[in-house]
Amino acid sequence: MTRNYNFSAGPSALPEDVLKQAQHELLDWHGLGLSIMEMSHRSKEFVAVAAEAEQDLRDLMKIPDNYKVLFMQGGASSQFSMIPMNLLRGKTTADYINTGDWSKKAIKEASRYCDVNVVATTEADNFTSVPAQSELKLNPDAAYVHYTPNETIRGVEFDYIPDTGDVPLVADMSSNILSRPIDVSRFAMIYAGAQKNIGPAGLTVVIVRDDLLGDILPTTPALYDYKVNADADSMLNTPPTFGWYLAGLVFKWLKAQGGVEGIAELNRRKAEKLYAVIDSNPFYSNPVAINARSWMNVPFILANADLDKLFLQEAQDKGLLNLPGHRSVGGMRASIYNAVPEEGVDALIAFMQDFSQRHG
Amino acid sequence: MTRNYNFSAGPSALPEDVLKQAQHELLDWHGLGLSIMEMSHRSKEFVAVAAEAEQDLRDLMKIPDNYKVLFMQGGASSQFSMIPMNLLRGKTTADYINTGDWSKKAIKEASRYCDVNVVATTEADNFTSVPAQSELKLNPDAAYVHYTPNETIRGVEFDYIPDTGDVPLVADMSSNILSRPIDVSRFAMIYAGAQKNIGPAGLTVVIVRDDLLGDILPTTPALYDYKVNADADSMLNTPPTFGWYLAGLVFKWLKAQGGVEGIAELNRRKAEKLYAVIDSNPFYSNPVAINARSWMNVPFILANADLDKLFLQEAQDKGLLNLPGHRSVGGMRASIYNAVPEEGVDALIAFMQDFSQRHG
Repeated sequence: MTRNYNFSAGPSALPEDVLKQAQHELLDWHGLGLSIMEMSHRSKEFVAVAAEAEQDLRDLMKIPDNYKVLFMQGGASSQFSMIPMNLLRGKTTADYINTGDWSKKAIKEASRYCDVNVVATTEADNFTSVPAQSELKLNPDAAYVHYTPNETIRGVEFDYIPDTGDVPLVADMSSNILSRPIDVSRFAMIYAGAQKNIGPAGLTVVIVRDDLLGDILPTTPALYDYKVNADADSMLNTPPTFGWYLAGLVFKWLKAQGGVEGIAELNRRKAEKLYAVIDSNPFYSNPVAINARSWMNVPFILANADLDKLFLQEAQDKGLLNLPGHRSVGGMRASIYNAVPEEGVDALIAFMQDFSQRHG
Repeated sequence: MTRNYNFSAGPSALPEDVLKQAQHELLDWHGLGLSIMEMSHRSKEFVAVAAEAEQDLRDLMKIPDNYKVLFMQGGASSQFSMIPMNLLRGKTTADYINTGDWSKKAIKEASRYCDVNVVATTEADNFTSVPAQSELKLNPDAAYVHYTPNETIRGVEFDYIPDTGDVPLVADMSSNILSRPIDVSRFAMIYAGAQKNIGPAGLTVVIVRDDLLGDILPTTPALYDYKVNADADSMLNTPPTFGWYLAGLVFKWLKAQGGVEGIAELNRRKAEKLYAVIDSNPFYSNPVAINARSWMNVPFILANADLDKLFLQEAQDKGLLNLPGHRSVGGMRASIYNAVPEEGVDALIAFMQDFSQRHG
């Protein structure tokens, strides 16, 4: 068995220890003689697995008791519809901050349900920055404010949590949840597709303040109703049991890394050393404003784009996988989520230095 | 490692060969040095896995070219909303046949979007039969007719496909898809949660005639729009990649069993021998009309309900797992889906005969 370093933006690297445990017990979970995938979601064993995963996530993120934690399906994109369906609550407008491709998708879908006010956009600088708090033209009557703390494609991450006063703040944390400590109480709702820092694709985590539940648009599908899901402990119907179980293993692994505080130190180190090479070596560059650079997704371009293909081929030959930038922007992107080990970043840096010496 | 016989109604048994292959390649898929779970859904490797799974399903079910096959999230229950949202197509009423708990759930959700005509119900006989074709009070103006070919909880299966004339027929085949040959062209749409005969929970297969797509209710979420999903090859956003991959392995396994035709012979044999014991041994009984008995879910009760607990305990001690009936009906239920081997049914029968001799 070979294990390469995987810089995929999502689905992305999972902790090797988690995969090994899942592999070990794949046909016989805890001596029961069947796979966790073959167990009823209503069995006492699976219910315990599910509850423990939720508790571990609550511990890791210090989620206050007045927040529900939902394990849903559909990905973050399904939340783009659910958010207005659940959180408009009689209002007709919502504020959205536009910092890139995922913001735009959220805006497009929300616009089908309400009037969207784009209260700030960084489109003019090609989404290479984040707006300052003072630039947010917030509406006190908005039902909520939505933003994307980390934009996966262009590697742009907010260095602050917007202050929205009494207006509920909603965050798509798909690509930076659990990467560093955050104060959950600043948010009305946090959501994340699992396939970056949580587990496999097909699971979506929603953390929502319980006073916001229960006032839905009339045409909301039952499975899109947060209250209905919360009241059923996310088991209105069969949940994605294997993903939920794997997320639980990832949470245990994260606790063993010192929790979010521990992994944050590692993430800072990984990101800083990679940006240091990009900034100090004229062969590489990154267009994002210093304060807005993502710890999770690090895009960079070569001084000579003709060498892109060779760079990617040589990287792959060295076991450095999935470095092409998103098809909409080109160049390179190293996604260095929690599960990408520091040695992977070190190997990438060594390769980048070597490649630039040979071709720079 | 021990492997027991698993009679769970869902999530349920998976083919052991499939689990073994998944286990073998869990950390290193085809020598790429990463898990299939860690791969981008847009990588050429995963796109090939996804396309091959679809083609194998098309082969197995002989799906005509004018049907789209979608790999979605949300379970069959999410389809209860999607069906009216997509298939009302300007009409305001739909026909539903009520043969049990899952029919009722589909009706309840559809009633939020249209006028539901219940065109037949077997509630009067406690859902132990299926209505005859002549008993269906079909409305020629209905947008579609919905039914549940197999009711998982009470073990009731249609022995015919309703003739609905020009009105599109929609079937929830969650618990009997791929269990025997069917003529797909008789249906406008077939859907199934994966966690019985397809793969792990979190994946839903939808087979829908392409002329029915594109005329949705205005408030339909993008991810609930069949046409949007079809146009994106079920990758509007990240699909449940591991479930899709596992479904593909199950389809390969099913081909190796002689396809749907081959497994149908096995399923017939498994069901017939189990019902034979229930009917011939006065210690056991099953209330379902002979013509409506499910090949997949076989409920039965003991003559003396005081022995239920002992029966279940002894069965479990012999490695015969998950035999309690659904909490709403009690008694026992043996779900004998494709992946439950004939030896498992033989072992159950041997135990039932032995138990009745000792306690009858």
